[in-house]
Amino acid sequence: MKSKQEYAVKENSLSDKFAQKYKDDFPILNQQINGKDLIYFDNAATTQKPESVLDAVDNYNRTINANPHRGAHTLSIRATEAYENAREKVKDFINAEKSEEIIFTRNTTESLNLLANSMEALVEEGDEILISVLEHHSNILPWQQLAERKNLKLKYLYPDQNYRIQLSELREKLSEKTKILSISQMSNVSGVINPVKEMIELAHQNDALVVVDGAQGAPHLKTDVRALDADFYAFSGHKMLAPMGIGVLYGKKALLEELPPFLKGGGMIEYVKEQDSTYAPLPEKFEAGTPNVEGAVGLQAAIEYLEDIGLDKIKEHELELTEYALEKMGELDYVEIAGPTDLEDRGGIISFNLRDIHSHDLATIVDSEGIAIRSGHHCAQPLMKFYQLNSTGRISFYLYNTKAEVDKFIESLDKVREVFGYGS
Amino acid sequence: MKSKQEYAVKENSLSDKFAQKYKDDFPILNQQINGKDLIYFDNAATTQKPESVLDAVDNYNRTINANPHRGAHTLSIRATEAYENAREKVKDFINAEKSEEIIFTRNTTESLNLLANSMEALVEEGDEILISVLEHHSNILPWQQLAERKNLKLKYLYPDQNYRIQLSELREKLSEKTKILSISQMSNVSGVINPVKEMIELAHQNDALVVVDGAQGAPHLKTDVRALDADFYAFSGHKMLAPMGIGVLYGKKALLEELPPFLKGGGMIEYVKEQDSTYAPLPEKFEAGTPNVEGAVGLQAAIEYLEDIGLDKIKEHELELTEYALEKMGELDYVEIAGPTDLEDRGGIISFNLRDIHSHDLATIVDSEGIAIRSGHHCAQPLMKFYQLNSTGRISFYLYNTKAEVDKFIESLDKVREVFGYGS
Repeated sequence: MKSKQEYAVKENSLSDKFAQKYKDDFPILNQQINGKDLIYFDNAATTQKPESVLDAVDNYNRTINANPHRGAHTLSIRATEAYENAREKVKDFINAEKSEEIIFTRNTTESLNLLANSMEALVEEGDEILISVLEHHSNILPWQQLAERKNLKLKYLYPDQNYRIQLSELREKLSEKTKILSISQMSNVSGVINPVKEMIELAHQNDALVVVDGAQGAPHLKTDVRALDADFYAFSGHKMLAPMGIGVLYGKKALLEELPPFLKGGGMIEYVKEQDSTYAPLPEKFEAGTPNVEGAVGLQAAIEYLEDIGLDKIKEHELELTEYALEKMGELDYVEIAGPTDLEDRGGIISFNLRDIHSHDLATIVDSEGIAIRSGHHCAQPLMKFYQLNSTGRISFYLYNTKAEVDKFIESLDKVREVFGYGS
Repeated sequence: MKSKQEYAVKENSLSDKFAQKYKDDFPILNQQINGKDLIYFDNAATTQKPESVLDAVDNYNRTINANPHRGAHTLSIRATEAYENAREKVKDFINAEKSEEIIFTRNTTESLNLLANSMEALVEEGDEILISVLEHHSNILPWQQLAERKNLKLKYLYPDQNYRIQLSELREKLSEKTKILSISQMSNVSGVINPVKEMIELAHQNDALVVVDGAQGAPHLKTDVRALDADFYAFSGHKMLAPMGIGVLYGKKALLEELPPFLKGGGMIEYVKEQDSTYAPLPEKFEAGTPNVEGAVGLQAAIEYLEDIGLDKIKEHELELTEYALEKMGELDYVEIAGPTDLEDRGGIISFNLRDIHSHDLATIVDSEGIAIRSGHHCAQPLMKFYQLNSTGRISFYLYNTKAEVDKFIESLDKVREVFGYGS
């Protein structure tokens, strides 16, 4: 255990200067909640938006806004350019090969639903789908539904005690019947980063297609879909400084071409006759109806903001905060961490419980100190059941969080204990 | 035919004063395109946003933004309130009975896809679905798909020469096998308003459920889903001054409860086990994943803006512009109107062609005069085929358009003729 003095030195490290510098870019963070400076530790749910993102969307709405693709007038052409520039930016962000491999959706949930519906064309009765018990509900339910509809077997990978899925577990569960492996890049509960590259390699050796749920990964980990050799990759804008209502599905071109469309409507067709229709080429085939251009514009600005700083630098900062928080929480004997306490292959998410206190009470009391944390099952009930957790509190970091905020959070835990009469 | 002097009087009517007053609220309209003042006549595709909508979204992002529903912290609670307030506003806007009858979607297209997927539970092989040949692709393709999947018959209502569907046609096509009638409230091509109330009554007499595509209706017609007795009603925010990426599906509570969910994921479940799940009550059952709260907030502000003026007053203004434009276009012998030229049961949408000139050329040339109109098949290929149209130009009005703009548009048509060497 370290002394207070050692922490005091750490508090003045590069990390906090880095965060303070960027925090000013986020107007929402400059406010008081319940009379205290807001400390926003709910980034795994939704992140905040810097001025540059707000400005990009506002500027679009004040100068460009129109329905793209289908118009010959100047605003429509400019809106199309804005939308396609955003697609190009996303393509580069995850190092996809072609811009038509980038499908704009509403969020990760829609991306995964799209896949689980359209991939029905690629599976047959008796085939197996492999997911893990650590997945977010949005990476479970669509596959449950596909399994039920096509009479497939939905199999689970189980983690070890340390919340990690071993490659041996994957080797064991993969079979010649496995057609799809769908796995999260980073757990939204434990913060564990899965060995996705190795998992993809193993799955491919078994001729299974791999879907990566990048909801927690894309915002925090420099991701190269080609280096990973991911077949599909899904993520959301609102977890990476961008607006709500915009998400992404990446897919290898040959696979996306093979899949039938999901939503049907305007913009995704070639010819419509009374009884049948033919579909437009990629990416329009998967983008029915008026797209969320302003959302895409905001996503582009968010990516530019993140890249200007550097994802690696952001991750390093988050890990420094995580290390600091884990150390301080480790000093409190009433704190139980629901996840690994080492820093190997993990991001800036910490789930935990205070002994004998429900996480909802915990969240409510720290909120009275201006600290926003999440509590509950985090849309991961099978994980909760597996680890026999009723619920957890969860803190999750981003570039604008500081060690000083972690200190205040740690102090607030004492207060929670006091409220319940346990003493500190 | 009226004299120029008569028009001059009309130009000074209440109508233009009304529009000028509100036009200043829309920053995007105060710009030049190709050196000319922008005239935005593409409102049936996407409308523009007044300051109050931009401010509402901006304010949300600067003070409230968080993931709603699942959090115990203050911002999350405020975001939930903002989201549910928007739902309440939408409920009142269309006079639904209960707020849980309002499902937020991305747009009309998603609302209709949701229905065509979930209503699969209500139909059996051999049943019939009835739509019209005037529908937008988004109200055709989802039903084609459902028909194919469940081996149903997809039948069409055909309009008369004047682009109107007669009730006698509906009576003839309805049968005891008809389970679903899906019909647009207003055509996005001809501007014809369908007699939806009477159609619903007839369909209900035959025990068919009725889906109303309100994409063009909700923004322009005061709509009361209870007075209509509509079973389902769908519309988009971006066609009524609100942001892109937010739409609505209204459904009668008992029917929505009967339908299985469409998208699966976080927020819409009760319990998730490894192999099966149970779903949350309405409206969450149909709202998987992080919702577009900022879009909902913008939609609420848009509704408030429209209601402050009054939808009836806006419609009156649009009709005055439509009458004026139809009269002026009627004076030009090279203009062919693709729709009724009377004002009975129609809104402010006029499709047309200039003889011997393709609509894309038309749109491009008027764009050089700063006038934004749409051209093409307007996502209504079956309508185009039915009336043997290759494509049309389309102008569509909203509250901020003026007769002076119509005059400039009429002048620009002469220019189009000149460019093609036809003379005026």
